[in-house]
Amino acid sequence: MSKPLPSWNDGATRQALLDFVSAVTTEGSAAYVRPEDRVAVFDNDGTLWAEQPMYVQALFAVDRVRELAPEHPEWRGQQPFKALIEGDEKALAALTEHDAAALVAATHAGMTTAEFSRTAKAWLAKAKHPRFQRPFTHCVYQPMLELLELLRANGFTPHIVSGGGIDFLRAFCEQTYGIPSAHVIGSSGKTKLEWRDGRPELVKLPSLTSLDDGEGKPINIHLHIGKRPVLAFGNSDGDLQMLQYAGAPDGPRMRLLLHHDDSAREYAYDRDAKAGRLDRALEVAGQDGWTVVSMRQDWKQVFP
Amino acid sequence: MSKPLPSWNDGATRQALLDFVSAVTTEGSAAYVRPEDRVAVFDNDGTLWAEQPMYVQALFAVDRVRELAPEHPEWRGQQPFKALIEGDEKALAALTEHDAAALVAATHAGMTTAEFSRTAKAWLAKAKHPRFQRPFTHCVYQPMLELLELLRANGFTPHIVSGGGIDFLRAFCEQTYGIPSAHVIGSSGKTKLEWRDGRPELVKLPSLTSLDDGEGKPINIHLHIGKRPVLAFGNSDGDLQMLQYAGAPDGPRMRLLLHHDDSAREYAYDRDAKAGRLDRALEVAGQDGWTVVSMRQDWKQVFP
Repeated sequence: MSKPLPSWNDGATRQALLDFVSAVTTEGSAAYVRPEDRVAVFDNDGTLWAEQPMYVQALFAVDRVRELAPEHPEWRGQQPFKALIEGDEKALAALTEHDAAALVAATHAGMTTAEFSRTAKAWLAKAKHPRFQRPFTHCVYQPMLELLELLRANGFTPHIVSGGGIDFLRAFCEQTYGIPSAHVIGSSGKTKLEWRDGRPELVKLPSLTSLDDGEGKPINIHLHIGKRPVLAFGNSDGDLQMLQYAGAPDGPRMRLLLHHDDSAREYAYDRDAKAGRLDRALEVAGQDGWTVVSMRQDWKQVFP
Repeated sequence: MSKPLPSWNDGATRQALLDFVSAVTTEGSAAYVRPEDRVAVFDNDGTLWAEQPMYVQALFAVDRVRELAPEHPEWRGQQPFKALIEGDEKALAALTEHDAAALVAATHAGMTTAEFSRTAKAWLAKAKHPRFQRPFTHCVYQPMLELLELLRANGFTPHIVSGGGIDFLRAFCEQTYGIPSAHVIGSSGKTKLEWRDGRPELVKLPSLTSLDDGEGKPINIHLHIGKRPVLAFGNSDGDLQMLQYAGAPDGPRMRLLLHHDDSAREYAYDRDAKAGRLDRALEVAGQDGWTVVSMRQDWKQVFP
């Protein structure tokens, strides 16, 4: 194998990753973990791909609302639809991942999961990042792709645990990250089984069943994976509980927090954009000795 | 590789399985399926292991109720606890998979998921099948273990999709079937995150979130796997929708129904034990050309 993690600068962070992988995979080492227990979890927005200036799924939701607006005259008098249709920048910027998931659920109710998947794929194929002017699936982080590859080569099973909608995530995660759809976890909406054209289809309903954020992340990790991860990688307060949940206090575990401190190549945002306070996760990272990854210092290259 | 499916008798059923696997894995064949889409789903009770004379999890629930009864004097006046504590055979026999899951949820509320897992594993290690007098994990079907192995060797990913409780299933499925916990789907109860002894733990709550039976199976297949299976194997009406959901009408797919017609080596039960009617799944199997597997005729050997 060629040199692992080539887009990571030599230094303490890269070395900590290599040391952890080596310890976990060395039989007889105190930190050895059996391959079936090498579960790794990754947040998506802001951890595997760019989440600024807005969550990608929020942009998708906005485009969908505008596209579907002619069929829904009632939206013109109804928030948040009204603001989005009118292009209210402030309302757009305030959309959270949850708002987007709820909006997607509402606007896509009645659609089959297959139709939704086609719609999301078609949007992703043509939509472009407003600053980088390339498809969002090319605004993924090259160093993270290399980390996923290193982990897989060492018997780890990486999972995505994102606040984004699970059906939206699955429209690109397999192809973009090489992570099978069964290992992609996200916020989810209710569905019901309905026969259409002589075939059972799952139809999306407007209500959410699970918000995969904060406490929802460990809950969904247990539901979908059934094991505590030994490696967890996030970038915001929504990932706090997931990182705290990872590993045993006396066992091998690695918790990583991506610090966006690179306005030149990507974005710099120490503070929670919505609440205006220092990310709690960054505080806990300092107290508990998590690995804080500096985009500016640790990454040779950001995008592929 | 030695001869595949050695515990299956030569005949149409075994041949159909081999032909399907061969067609799906032959590049260029009309039925070719890419490895990442070779999703297979299996019911557990009555498909991978014996479900007679009672669901294994129902036996576990009964034992747990009796064990916990001294701490719950109120149960003596409360159904279904009263009947179970008093050993009411009729009440026992009438317990469904759902009753068992609900009972397990109720009796185990307040316990962490790790404590539950230890309890279930300890019970499975000492409990014995009343007729076969061996642990339940040895009452799995040898021909099915061989089928799982054949599928894995051909790039399929087998998943369990069971009406049983997901935490109970995960106490044995990985070791018994070689199916990772992330690929085990079942009925699930709510949990909440709580700090205990300085560590975040998931605590079981008494309410169910999902009944993984009937229509619940395709819904959970979508939620947990995110793809339509190309092979589905079940044995009862609870599997009907899962089998109907598998594959595309014009694409490669195989639907199998295990017919328990072997009272000498296992059990014979054509009819739904509760409703006294011919299984609807068996009817649909005949109409739609599913493969009905006869335990008596197709299996050389039943248990390992």
